[in-house]
Amino acid sequence: MTGCIFCRIVSGDAPATAVHETDALYAFLDIRPIARGHTLVIPKRHATDLDELDHETGAVIFTLGHRLAKALRRSELGADGANLLLNDGRSAFQTVPHVHLHVVPRRSGDTLAFAKGFLLRRPHEPESTAATIRAGLARLEGERP
Amino acid sequence: MTGCIFCRIVSGDAPATAVHETDALYAFLDIRPIARGHTLVIPKRHATDLDELDHETGAVIFTLGHRLAKALRRSELGADGANLLLNDGRSAFQTVPHVHLHVVPRRSGDTLAFAKGFLLRRPHEPESTAATIRAGLARLEGERP
Ligand SMILES: [Zn+2]
Ligand SMILES: [Zn+2]
Repeated sequence: MTGCIFCRIVSGDAPATAVHETDALYAFLDIRPIARGHTLVIPKRHATDLDELDHETGAVIFTLGHRLAKALRRSELGADGANLLLNDGRSAFQTVPHVHLHVVPRRSGDTLAFAKGFLLRRPHEPESTAATIRAGLARLEGERP
Repeated sequence: MTGCIFCRIVSGDAPATAVHETDALYAFLDIRPIARGHTLVIPKRHATDLDELDHETGAVIFTLGHRLAKALRRSELGADGANLLLNDGRSAFQTVPHVHLHVVPRRSGDTLAFAKGFLLRRPHEPESTAATIRAGLARLEGERP
């Protein structure tokens, strides 16, 4: 969809720091992260909201979110938890009209830092952060029987 | 897991207002809803967090969340959006140590009601609310080609 910032990221017409990519999905760092490692998972094919999204793509979006939550725990970010959040619809505070799942790494005792990050939303060394998450994904992959 | 309130709900030893049930999943109204229709989707088999949860079960949890978001839009609740939230780990504000996905119906202009609901978290006629969501699920089912 022309003019959709996330479609432009998928096509390479707008910049983003990639975390992971599959045939159907693109995962990249939120440009205004609540916490270091805050990642968005989106379908490559435009869907405005969950109502427009087929359930197979919905399932793989969430499966990647699940993997990212596990990868963050295995990364150097020191996460021991994550918030997975999908705001569906403008009334639900969806700001970009292309389905996206937020995956926000959390660590014990980060409540104040989290609140501060929520207000400031400043990037933290995107390239090294994305590399750290990719290393966590690789570690997770290595665990599979 | 003995002592786990959500396992007790699954086994019928603790009360809950059911919304939907499958072999692997149970969906019921949050006893302290942020908004009318606030539903939790849980795996029947205990998993403390996403790290303990297999990815097949993760996928079906989120697929049911996706269906519920669509069903809420088709229900008499008048939702035109939803927040899907999974707090994974104590650091991420997970309060019950059994994986659960929140599905919170939203409607345009509900920001103040939402903020109030967030503070009050009072139930709203659970039986009729659950029936309303089930009717939305049935309507969604009827749309399938
Ligand atoms: Zn788009
Ligand atoms: Zn349990």
